[in-house]
Amino acid sequence: MSLPAIMIEPVVRAALLEDLGRAGDITTDAVVPSDARVETELVARQAGVVAGLDFALTAFRLIDPAIVVTVDRPDGTRLSPRDRIAVISGPARGILTAERTALNFLCHLSGIASATRGITEAIAGTHAQVCCTRKTIPGLRFAQKYAVRVGGGSNHRFGLDDAVLIKDNHVAIAGGVREAIARARAHVGHLVKIELEVDTLEQLAEAMQLRVDAVLLDNMGPDLLREAVAIVDGRAITEASGRIRPDTAPAIAASGVDLLSVGWLTHSATVLDIGLDFVG
Amino acid sequence: MSLPAIMIEPVVRAALLEDLGRAGDITTDAVVPSDARVETELVARQAGVVAGLDFALTAFRLIDPAIVVTVDRPDGTRLSPRDRIAVISGPARGILTAERTALNFLCHLSGIASATRGITEAIAGTHAQVCCTRKTIPGLRFAQKYAVRVGGGSNHRFGLDDAVLIKDNHVAIAGGVREAIARARAHVGHLVKIELEVDTLEQLAEAMQLRVDAVLLDNMGPDLLREAVAIVDGRAITEASGRIRPDTAPAIAASGVDLLSVGWLTHSATVLDIGLDFVG
Amino acid sequence: MSLPAIMIEPVVRAALLEDLGRAGDITTDAVVPSDARVETELVARQAGVVAGLDFALTAFRLIDPAIVVTVDRPDGTRLSPRDRIAVISGPARGILTAERTALNFLCHLSGIASATRGITEAIAGTHAQVCCTRKTIPGLRFAQKYAVRVGGGSNHRFGLDDAVLIKDNHVAIAGGVREAIARARAHVGHLVKIELEVDTLEQLAEAMQLRVDAVLLDNMGPDLLREAVAIVDGRAITEASGRIRPDTAPAIAASGVDLLSVGWLTHSATVLDIGLDFVG
Amino acid sequence: MSLPAIMIEPVVRAALLEDLGRAGDITTDAVVPSDARVETELVARQAGVVAGLDFALTAFRLIDPAIVVTVDRPDGTRLSPRDRIAVISGPARGILTAERTALNFLCHLSGIASATRGITEAIAGTHAQVCCTRKTIPGLRFAQKYAVRVGGGSNHRFGLDDAVLIKDNHVAIAGGVREAIARARAHVGHLVKIELEVDTLEQLAEAMQLRVDAVLLDNMGPDLLREAVAIVDGRAITEASGRIRPDTAPAIAASGVDLLSVGWLTHSATVLDIGLDFVG
Amino acid sequence: MSLPAIMIEPVVRAALLEDLGRAGDITTDAVVPSDARVETELVARQAGVVAGLDFALTAFRLIDPAIVVTVDRPDGTRLSPRDRIAVISGPARGILTAERTALNFLCHLSGIASATRGITEAIAGTHAQVCCTRKTIPGLRFAQKYAVRVGGGSNHRFGLDDAVLIKDNHVAIAGGVREAIARARAHVGHLVKIELEVDTLEQLAEAMQLRVDAVLLDNMGPDLLREAVAIVDGRAITEASGRIRPDTAPAIAASGVDLLSVGWLTHSATVLDIGLDFVG
Amino acid sequence: MSLPAIMIEPVVRAALLEDLGRAGDITTDAVVPSDARVETELVARQAGVVAGLDFALTAFRLIDPAIVVTVDRPDGTRLSPRDRIAVISGPARGILTAERTALNFLCHLSGIASATRGITEAIAGTHAQVCCTRKTIPGLRFAQKYAVRVGGGSNHRFGLDDAVLIKDNHVAIAGGVREAIARARAHVGHLVKIELEVDTLEQLAEAMQLRVDAVLLDNMGPDLLREAVAIVDGRAITEASGRIRPDTAPAIAASGVDLLSVGWLTHSATVLDIGLDFVG
Repeated sequence: MSLPAIMIEPVVRAALLEDLGRAGDITTDAVVPSDARVETELVARQAGVVAGLDFALTAFRLIDPAIVVTVDRPDGTRLSPRDRIAVISGPARGILTAERTALNFLCHLSGIASATRGITEAIAGTHAQVCCTRKTIPGLRFAQKYAVRVGGGSNHRFGLDDAVLIKDNHVAIAGGVREAIARARAHVGHLVKIELEVDTLEQLAEAMQLRVDAVLLDNMGPDLLREAVAIVDGRAITEASGRIRPDTAPAIAASGVDLLSVGWLTHSATVLDIGLDFVG
Repeated sequence: MSLPAIMIEPVVRAALLEDLGRAGDITTDAVVPSDARVETELVARQAGVVAGLDFALTAFRLIDPAIVVTVDRPDGTRLSPRDRIAVISGPARGILTAERTALNFLCHLSGIASATRGITEAIAGTHAQVCCTRKTIPGLRFAQKYAVRVGGGSNHRFGLDDAVLIKDNHVAIAGGVREAIARARAHVGHLVKIELEVDTLEQLAEAMQLRVDAVLLDNMGPDLLREAVAIVDGRAITEASGRIRPDTAPAIAASGVDLLSVGWLTHSATVLDIGLDFVG
Repeated sequence: MSLPAIMIEPVVRAALLEDLGRAGDITTDAVVPSDARVETELVARQAGVVAGLDFALTAFRLIDPAIVVTVDRPDGTRLSPRDRIAVISGPARGILTAERTALNFLCHLSGIASATRGITEAIAGTHAQVCCTRKTIPGLRFAQKYAVRVGGGSNHRFGLDDAVLIKDNHVAIAGGVREAIARARAHVGHLVKIELEVDTLEQLAEAMQLRVDAVLLDNMGPDLLREAVAIVDGRAITEASGRIRPDTAPAIAASGVDLLSVGWLTHSATVLDIGLDFVG
Repeated sequence: MSLPAIMIEPVVRAALLEDLGRAGDITTDAVVPSDARVETELVARQAGVVAGLDFALTAFRLIDPAIVVTVDRPDGTRLSPRDRIAVISGPARGILTAERTALNFLCHLSGIASATRGITEAIAGTHAQVCCTRKTIPGLRFAQKYAVRVGGGSNHRFGLDDAVLIKDNHVAIAGGVREAIARARAHVGHLVKIELEVDTLEQLAEAMQLRVDAVLLDNMGPDLLREAVAIVDGRAITEASGRIRPDTAPAIAASGVDLLSVGWLTHSATVLDIGLDFVG
Repeated sequence: MSLPAIMIEPVVRAALLEDLGRAGDITTDAVVPSDARVETELVARQAGVVAGLDFALTAFRLIDPAIVVTVDRPDGTRLSPRDRIAVISGPARGILTAERTALNFLCHLSGIASATRGITEAIAGTHAQVCCTRKTIPGLRFAQKYAVRVGGGSNHRFGLDDAVLIKDNHVAIAGGVREAIARARAHVGHLVKIELEVDTLEQLAEAMQLRVDAVLLDNMGPDLLREAVAIVDGRAITEASGRIRPDTAPAIAASGVDLLSVGWLTHSATVLDIGLDFVG
Repeated sequence: MSLPAIMIEPVVRAALLEDLGRAGDITTDAVVPSDARVETELVARQAGVVAGLDFALTAFRLIDPAIVVTVDRPDGTRLSPRDRIAVISGPARGILTAERTALNFLCHLSGIASATRGITEAIAGTHAQVCCTRKTIPGLRFAQKYAVRVGGGSNHRFGLDDAVLIKDNHVAIAGGVREAIARARAHVGHLVKIELEVDTLEQLAEAMQLRVDAVLLDNMGPDLLREAVAIVDGRAITEASGRIRPDTAPAIAASGVDLLSVGWLTHSATVLDIGLDFVG
């Protein structure tokens, strides 16, 4: 799994320039001779799943094309503590200058992939799949959603434009579920799916008469979800939502829903601790 | 405390365009009449400190200048659950379209400010202050560091260029602490401070003979830190570093160091839950 | 129907700067006094449908906010020759400088809307709807697809990322229709539809066993299309494709397909002739 | 004939990103193995003139530098149906992902070159040359004007800043031809030419006393143009303008004017049909 | 004389961001209360010509739209020491933050205008006019050339694309003046002028048989220039070039040439000293 | 000494596009055959110090990667007239097209380095060092400050955000030196230095009680400076400021101050004359 370099480079370039500021790496330029060479390793300091290696390697390459990289464990690999992910060797200055930017991408995206994998494993044996939301860090949505895929999760909408999601406020303003769905169907193209957020089983029953592609079952407990799944009966995709965490996920997944929508994968991900160790 | 609009607008603009994609908010455009108007409120769902309100309000203003805002609790205000932060009223379409982007900034930055405040309060009564690091989310460093200030923390370097921080690998390549500091001092301007990372008290003693502005005491426990503070004896700023968390912070702060450097404020911040409620 | 200003402004700004170059409008600056004021009208010179008025008005506003605009016929209005679309009045310099850029957007997008309306009317009475393709002018896809909607058409994919379209070459490399669809289904999120291009009725029959959301019936004549529609029998959306023009559209639409995919709406649109007339 | 890569890359990069959106080519990534390789050919499906090959090849190269290209018929070559223009071989994923963007540039620019060549041939034997206008697609003016040159045409102004063109409205506001020309001459540098639009032979006679570099003879028929050319008598460049099409061009050119200004070359160009065929 | 705001804003915005960095104006934010208001004046500290006022005022406006400006002496006004150029009043923070960026533009551009005026006055009474070159500061060419116009000078080419200038190396590679001119004439549009650099009177005589629009007489002394002007005899524009300075300009201008090309106006301009004084 | 390519490329790219405009180098494209090759040399025409070679070489490389470069005298080398700096050979078109942009960077930055070296040598034997200011050319501050370093100077603040400089107006608004310094110290991080501008010895004495890192002694003559240095007595860095020129610098430096702040290094630098000569 990978993203085209043309999508990765702009954010890495911007991150490097954010760090270099107007004078560059004044410590390294002063202290490290221009001909010093080093061999270093990206090493996991805790267990998890690696994601975003291309972002990290792009940071090194953009700073100095003479830096040489060998990848041991590509995106998606399960990591144990002390696992070597890649060897980075070459000019010491470039490696030191790019180090923090490379790690900022790698630790953040690996953190998301690891969290996704964690929930995915917690609900193994059920029918459900984990998916992310639009609650993302501004500017990094495409990268975060990629990390969710690496971790075995599925992607919900990438933006306001690639699917219809009719929420409670939309319904209230439109004057009802029926009217809201009718307007949506009249406006969007044939390749756009329509999902409806429902808060009660009555709304759900009404929605089922209206042929939507998916229903978002918001803040329902496992019992209510089980009833909802029975009402839908395979006629739409069912998605559970509302502060789902690793500890609550299994019971929710056991209700038979198709998807667990988990905002914190992207808005509150904890980094996976990965370091750059100098060898020899 | 605030940032100039000229710094805020570009990242908010980019975040809105990331969400609008190539077709805009197809749900709202289809379902909500263009003349519908609503009154909404930004409301805290948990206790914390608000930060990033200008980012959120810029999102609404950029989508539709007709949206009117009244702020109840500006950046830095301590929030209790259900506290109203601001009233947002006007065209329903614009408010619905900008909602998620506004909240993504506000919840993320308030999360950082709240975490900063949390540690700051945990170490109240000591001499120490909390500060952040360069372990930030790519593209948002200036905003995250602003949120740290809002939460009562202090900022470490903004990039590789605004202060010298000589780390262990720099020292190793330079061939010693003395040589590394000498090279740094020879290269940088008179308004640039020099900080040295030390791992042992021997290194610290050597550094104290060399007039550095600050020392980063990496991965030392409270007892060792206390000895280090005694060695420095006010001749440099002392900064403790190494996976400091709210539970370990008080003991570290009690050692007498000037600063606690806390990476997770920015790399692993949990959002503060804030919602947009429709009124009436 | 409209697009948010935040999506329109960047392309209009770029177009104005492309025209202003490095010295600005040297003719107007030399010849027209800075205090001259004029009243002008955007007037249709031929029949059609207006689209892109916000792009045109943004050009005037970006050059001089003192220019005042009154709109008579908003986007989607059917125009007869000599119909006045809007009145533009104010500083003569700004109006003359922005004129060509404003008209370039307005005539191009109105041309697309008019062509779309033309085909839509030609197939009135059938079940079919007109839709566009990814054969667009680089940089203007979102604007062109907006114009198609204004003209009464529907939008196919906005890019490679918002729906799956498995074409003949994909099938060939994957080793068959079944394998290609299986791989696609395993990879994409629950809000992404899957469409398959089929060239023969045999492929179509196979595809119907595999639950795809839509089928692209490429280069089939009306009779074959009729058979295809019968085979599909409502289980998927049917889309006819392949050099459909106004004269061939009615027969194709009469076959019962849901959609007519028409590339030339966007890749070879003829402008609608609209001029800026100086009044009095 | 060619443009520097530094001018071509930004628009191709933007077009690719417009197509890749936030998730990239989800069909190809799902269906095509990462190690699949193909050989393909750019093939003309109709007669014309190729233009914009560098734009198309840049699309392939930016997506994957491993894609290898061999050019058979460079820009400016006359094409017959089924002529092979270039061979594109390498990783299947990259070729499929870049295909549409590459063709969008190539078909559009070849369409312009072919139309230009068509009129140029229609007026062969006369003294006149075809030229384009500022009625261009926003964002692509430099590329479209390049295609006009490839097709054997000449370029009129690239923008408002590289030559003076005094139009009827300028004259009206200035209070006369004489005043307008005087003001223009006083303001512009010695390397800037001055052209005047004239609607009548009286205006033309007045202009001839004022030493302009060129006259734009707007909406005059062949007879009037012949008189105009006689009046000018070689003292200025003569340019005919006003909805000139292939069928009306020969008579206009026969009047003896130097240039035929043809807006539809760029504002309403029809694509030249070129396809990407997979070989063997 | 003025430039459209759409051309000015991007460079001023970039300059402000260059100065604000990642933390903004930390001195002013810390020291100056947010409600402090001041009245200030832009005041000339030496004699000269003001240019670039719109750039300076845009800096204040972009930092804080509440800043109010009254202009006393617009671009082109001759300044004596202590002349007030404009009054700037409003929020103290914004004025202090924008001050340096505003002055950097204003002093630089006024320096260019003043230098241009200086030479223009030195050659008053002759036929010649001063013009600039492409020896400009990267990124500011359009602004610098505007300042030359404000100072009473004329603009040579704005870039490589708006006129032909055949230099000695072009001639050498082409194999002679005749061949070079022929190739140029065959390639460029009818609104593009052709200038030839000549080093000797022999070359000049040859060029005069070939109908060029202008000749660049490089590094010739007054006597040689006088002969050259006689040879040209009004058939082309004559331009003298080669380290022309205020002291050497009068003799060169007295030779009868049309233009004096002066690189140092833009590549080595000395700032005009203008300050921002706080009032009462 | 060098800057990372990632910082250099954007400004060089922008400068090339500024020069290429919308049609590219029309002279070279018309006159020079595409297969012509040349060998050229960058040659000093006057004595000085070379700076900015990477900017110049980037211009050639961005225009045509086939251009080959050999550097004889890297940044920081002292140049005599006729010294060869580098050999540039390869395709004639690319070299001619990039020439002016390359020289514009190289001559400007070498001019700054040479001026810096000039003052540095004028004050040799004193304790003082030359430093630059924020009076820079918009958009090129990082490059100009780099050139100052190459010339042996030191850098003052890079922007408003990397150090505190409390000026007279800040003091006036804050209500006194004591209050201003207190507010600054309370706001800024531990790696930010604080400098205070003082106009009188009384202010200086007060400042010395307040522990500032540096004092800016504005517009003081050598005698007053000597007194000031005695008052400071090593407790802060002393910086003299106020129209320091090469002729006044030695006396000021002899006063014992640490730094001479010289604005004209960057705001009024004269280019160093360097040319591109075609060889044989």
